[in-house]
Amino acid sequence: MKQGPYRTYLTEKEFPRTWYNLKADMKEQHDPFLHPGTLQPITAADLEGVFCKEVIEQELNCSDRYIDIPEEILEIYKVYRPSPLCRAYNLEQELGTPAKIYYKFEGLNTSGSHKLNSAVAQAYYSKKQGLSGITTETGAGQWGTALAMACAFFKLDLKVFMVKVSAEQKPYRKAVIENFGAEVIPSPSTTTAAGRGILAEYPEHVGSLGCAISEAMEVSTSTPGYRYCLGSVLDHVMLHQSIIGEEALIAFDMLDEYPDIVIGCAGGGSNLGGIIAPFMGKTLRGEKPETRFIAVEPTSCPSLTRGKYVYDFGDTGKMTPLMRMYTLGSGYQPVATHSGGLRYHGMSPIISKLYHDGHIEAMALPQQEIFDAAKLFSRTETILPAPESNHAIAAAIREALKCKETGEEKTILFNLSGTGYFDMAAYMSYNEGRLVDAVPTDADLQKGFDTIPNIPVNAEALK
Amino acid sequence: MKQGPYRTYLTEKEFPRTWYNLKADMKEQHDPFLHPGTLQPITAADLEGVFCKEVIEQELNCSDRYIDIPEEILEIYKVYRPSPLCRAYNLEQELGTPAKIYYKFEGLNTSGSHKLNSAVAQAYYSKKQGLSGITTETGAGQWGTALAMACAFFKLDLKVFMVKVSAEQKPYRKAVIENFGAEVIPSPSTTTAAGRGILAEYPEHVGSLGCAISEAMEVSTSTPGYRYCLGSVLDHVMLHQSIIGEEALIAFDMLDEYPDIVIGCAGGGSNLGGIIAPFMGKTLRGEKPETRFIAVEPTSCPSLTRGKYVYDFGDTGKMTPLMRMYTLGSGYQPVATHSGGLRYHGMSPIISKLYHDGHIEAMALPQQEIFDAAKLFSRTETILPAPESNHAIAAAIREALKCKETGEEKTILFNLSGTGYFDMAAYMSYNEGRLVDAVPTDADLQKGFDTIPNIPVNAEALK
Repeated sequence: MKQGPYRTYLTEKEFPRTWYNLKADMKEQHDPFLHPGTLQPITAADLEGVFCKEVIEQELNCSDRYIDIPEEILEIYKVYRPSPLCRAYNLEQELGTPAKIYYKFEGLNTSGSHKLNSAVAQAYYSKKQGLSGITTETGAGQWGTALAMACAFFKLDLKVFMVKVSAEQKPYRKAVIENFGAEVIPSPSTTTAAGRGILAEYPEHVGSLGCAISEAMEVSTSTPGYRYCLGSVLDHVMLHQSIIGEEALIAFDMLDEYPDIVIGCAGGGSNLGGIIAPFMGKTLRGEKPETRFIAVEPTSCPSLTRGKYVYDFGDTGKMTPLMRMYTLGSGYQPVATHSGGLRYHGMSPIISKLYHDGHIEAMALPQQEIFDAAKLFSRTETILPAPESNHAIAAAIREALKCKETGEEKTILFNLSGTGYFDMAAYMSYNEGRLVDAVPTDADLQKGFDTIPNIPVNAEALK
Repeated sequence: MKQGPYRTYLTEKEFPRTWYNLKADMKEQHDPFLHPGTLQPITAADLEGVFCKEVIEQELNCSDRYIDIPEEILEIYKVYRPSPLCRAYNLEQELGTPAKIYYKFEGLNTSGSHKLNSAVAQAYYSKKQGLSGITTETGAGQWGTALAMACAFFKLDLKVFMVKVSAEQKPYRKAVIENFGAEVIPSPSTTTAAGRGILAEYPEHVGSLGCAISEAMEVSTSTPGYRYCLGSVLDHVMLHQSIIGEEALIAFDMLDEYPDIVIGCAGGGSNLGGIIAPFMGKTLRGEKPETRFIAVEPTSCPSLTRGKYVYDFGDTGKMTPLMRMYTLGSGYQPVATHSGGLRYHGMSPIISKLYHDGHIEAMALPQQEIFDAAKLFSRTETILPAPESNHAIAAAIREALKCKETGEEKTILFNLSGTGYFDMAAYMSYNEGRLVDAVPTDADLQKGFDTIPNIPVNAEALK
């Protein structure tokens, strides 16, 4: 029985004007990042050669609950946002569930995902600081596209180190990035010492995110006027992505609704962190103690459900600061899946801390189930989702089917983080019955764990 | 100076509840379709073996100005619509024009274009009539995708005859169609007499729209419970697409604005007919006599600007009724361009009549200019447009630059009919300087004209 609209769009007057800093409501902060050389908590000064200044301030800010979104960023958010809060009436009907299923649809921009929310912010702060260019890495290509769009807007140079096998398998994704004026360099490349070193040892190396990060960081730190940008994991990215949850919260208020369960897929953690932020804040403040939060990861890369909560590097090249997080080890090799955005060994330190403290649940789902969910979803809701987002859909369907058994009329919200237009090879595999659900054995995981450095967790360093 | 919002979305309460039938406001109707055998005006009975009944009624309806949108169709429109009316503030600023540029963005659904508006309607009426399946043809693939989405929703079978070269060059587009459960048959195929005939004569035939239409019509007329659907050209498609202009008109009312110029690209005419419909109605009724309407076509396929206004077939196979329209001849071979959706030899009879009577202007633009326009547009407005839509963008930019010279503050509206996510090969050609702007010579055109049947225009048959 249809009560409210299918889609709720905020008007510009209803837009959030601030980002929400979840850390301000966390009773305990995640452990501090450590300098990989000294093993001491990292300072703003340590980071200034890598990131631009305002981003570093945001990264280290644990006290301000709300941070003003600069007018210049708001003006771009208004160009491609709001993203709609959608009620999945047709999916509900097909499932025969009494649950109300809502999704926030972040795929309605050319980058195809939520990544643009942080890309715009990072490009703006870089421009404001007077930088001339930015470097980054990209795997599946959504982050590279988002940052290329943002840099085109602010007329900043951008060099994207794209995992070589991805650049070769996805020439059209590479073309989108180039269309926005960015330079795409398949990694490993001969343009950096890091790349040349890898190629000298492994001439046929097909690339990895770890290698691309090393190359991007080398170029940014050695080129005057350049800094490096990262699209997930870090606290400032979580901050920028809070716009997702904030818009959803305002829309729910308009509909006089509130979610009982909030679901997001989890790779580095940015879309999950974004959708849950203000709802988690209410729960942490005791205003909504009953809300459940669910992180969904692939069985092939189960950092939360099977990883360790220890200090580890963010990249396989071991150049980043050490972060305490749930990790499979930076040397973990996930078996092949079609969710490139979820193939990350670690997890956002904020998400990791919330999970460790029992505020978030986690589940790992196999490929077959998540593509089955996508098939049902696309045929009822007219949207072709990204394989990453399929994890959130499948978890929402599981919860809705539980409601069908119990008769409970729960309100479920999930983040539909992106579209699958550049992932048709994955859908072809599914439609042709070629999907493989390889679950890592304990021995597979142990190989990854063996690459984790032995750093004691220093309880005194907690704020 | 920003006055109103970037994007205006209608709420469900503000949605149009009727389609607008432009023919009811035309003083003269286009010449009647003729039966290709008898050369007599075609009747509803003649069409019943091909199309479903309600669609035929709409096709022949010249008197009802408004036609109720059935509730079931409205409910799906609400799932993927409204499409936003966008103000191109950033493009205006980049151009330095005093003109106000608005665009209606129809690409925010999985089919990637406006085609879904008619696909949903045609699938609904087919289901309502108790049909079990539909056939159609698709070239670039957007219509095939849209109809596959609609048939998945209504659980109707769908066979899509896809031009073979397109199916081979765009495996991912084919995969999207298949993902929604439709059967895609590369055409020419061995599944029909028409296909087998062509293959017997030309074993290496790469396919054409004309051939695909012949195959689709053969299957629909020989399979019990099947009918055929067409995605453009015909009057009922124009009717369904009027939702585009109607939404735009309501949004303009909310903004207290009205366009001085309305622009759309023109292949078969469906997106142009959709965006102009209610505005043209006001002009024809004398309420807004000054509004200009501009059809934009590629120089490679200039049916309006260089074609003849005569009776011709809609397909190269010469199976369709004869329609009086601007045509280059059904045997015309357009030189290669990247705007597959505009490579049609003819033009909607409604658009043709309005053009013939001086209510619409037309211009033909070269590929280089339209991709230059897309580059500027994508970098300022964050959207990667379909090559077809680039024609409308380029014409809007031309008009905006005229305003810059004269200082006039005109309000320009164009239809951004779709996105270019499956057209990256075209953008790669552009970015790599490989675009070719081949303009047909008079001799090239004459070859097409030679394929036009010699049917006298019977003035008595005009209503």
